[in-house]
Amino acid sequence: MKGKLVVVSGFSGVGKGTVMKRLIEEYDNYALSVSATTRKPRPGEKEGVAYFFKTVEEFEELIAKDELVEYAKYVDNYYGTPKAFVDKMRNEGKDVLLEIEIQGALKIKDKFPDAVLIFITAPSAQVLRERLVGRGTEDEETVNKRLARARQEAEGACKYDYVVVNDVLEECVKTVDIIIKSAHNRTEDNLAIVEEIRRDLSK
Amino acid sequence: MKGKLVVVSGFSGVGKGTVMKRLIEEYDNYALSVSATTRKPRPGEKEGVAYFFKTVEEFEELIAKDELVEYAKYVDNYYGTPKAFVDKMRNEGKDVLLEIEIQGALKIKDKFPDAVLIFITAPSAQVLRERLVGRGTEDEETVNKRLARARQEAEGACKYDYVVVNDVLEECVKTVDIIIKSAHNRTEDNLAIVEEIRRDLSK
Repeated sequence: MKGKLVVVSGFSGVGKGTVMKRLIEEYDNYALSVSATTRKPRPGEKEGVAYFFKTVEEFEELIAKDELVEYAKYVDNYYGTPKAFVDKMRNEGKDVLLEIEIQGALKIKDKFPDAVLIFITAPSAQVLRERLVGRGTEDEETVNKRLARARQEAEGACKYDYVVVNDVLEECVKTVDIIIKSAHNRTEDNLAIVEEIRRDLSK
Repeated sequence: MKGKLVVVSGFSGVGKGTVMKRLIEEYDNYALSVSATTRKPRPGEKEGVAYFFKTVEEFEELIAKDELVEYAKYVDNYYGTPKAFVDKMRNEGKDVLLEIEIQGALKIKDKFPDAVLIFITAPSAQVLRERLVGRGTEDEETVNKRLARARQEAEGACKYDYVVVNDVLEECVKTVDIIIKSAHNRTEDNLAIVEEIRRDLSK
C-alpha cells in the first residue's frame, strides 16, 4: 500500500516538531521528510537530518529542474521538499510527514489532492500568546513578525482537512496517528476491490 | 462534543451487523440507531431493539410529519430512521451508527453533509459470492434478488467516504472506529478555537 503524503502545519511554538518526532518513534509507518533550505544551519543541525542545506544557486537549480514537491520563501530563505526522497518513502509504504508553512501546504493540496493536511493548534489564544511572546530570547521585531505570521496561519487553517489541539501531547499524537491511518480507507484508494466484485457479479 | 451521524452500509452477508455490535460493546462512544420498518418481525426480534415495527399507515404518518431522518422502500417494505432518537443520542455526545441501504445513505449525505459514510466490503468477489449464494436456505429468486442488489451496492460504493474490507473482524472494527474518531477532528468542527486565536492575535 502506497504511503500517504501528510502535511503538518500549525502555529509556531505549538509543538508540531515534537508531535512528529513521537509519531516516528512510536509507530513504524512514518517517515519524516527532510527539507532543503537556504537558511544557515543552527548549532547542532546536521546536513541531511534537520535539513539539506543549500546555497541559493543550488536551491534555484532544484527549482529549475522541478525536483521539489513544493517550495516557498519565508523570511528571505527558501524552504522546499525534495521529490525523490518523498517518492522513495511512499513507495516503500511509509506515510511521509512534511512539516511545512501554510504557503507550501496549500500548494501541496493543489498538486496532490489526496494529501492529508493537518493543522495543529494550541488549546487557547492565551497559551499560544505565551508561547509566541514568552520565550524571552527574541527581540521585539522577531516577536512581532511571529505574531503577524500566526495571524496568517490562523486565517489559513480553514483550508486544512483536520485541526488537532495540542493540549496533552500523548492525545495529540494519537489523534494525528488515527487521522493518517484512517485516510488509507478513503474510498478513492479502495475502489479496486469493489470494482472487482462488481465485475464478478455482472458475469 | 456533539456526536457524529455515521452511516454503515455494505454488501449483504458481509458482517456489518457484527462490526456494529462490536463497536457498541467495545467502545463507549457509540449508539446504535433503531430503525422503524413495516416488515414483519423475524423470530426473536424485539420491538424497539432490532426495529420499531410499524404498520404501513403508522409509517406513512411518520413520513407525513417529517419525523424520519431518511426512509426508503426495499422489497415492498419501508425502512426509516426516527429523528428524535438520533438527535437525543448525538446531543449526549454519542456517535450514532445507522445501518442503512444505499438509497437511504445517499439521502443522508445530501441532508447531513457532515455525516460519515462507510461502506463495508468482503475481501474478494469469491468470498462475497459464497456468502450471498452459499447459505443454502433461500430459493433461487431470493438469491437472484440478492445478487442484483449487491451489483447496485457495488455501483454506489464510490459515493461513500470510506471503504473498509471486512476480512479479519477485529481489524475491521478497529478501522471503522478510528475512521469515526478521526472525523471529530475535521476542520469544520474545530474552527472555533482557531477563530478565537485569530481574534486574540488581531487585538
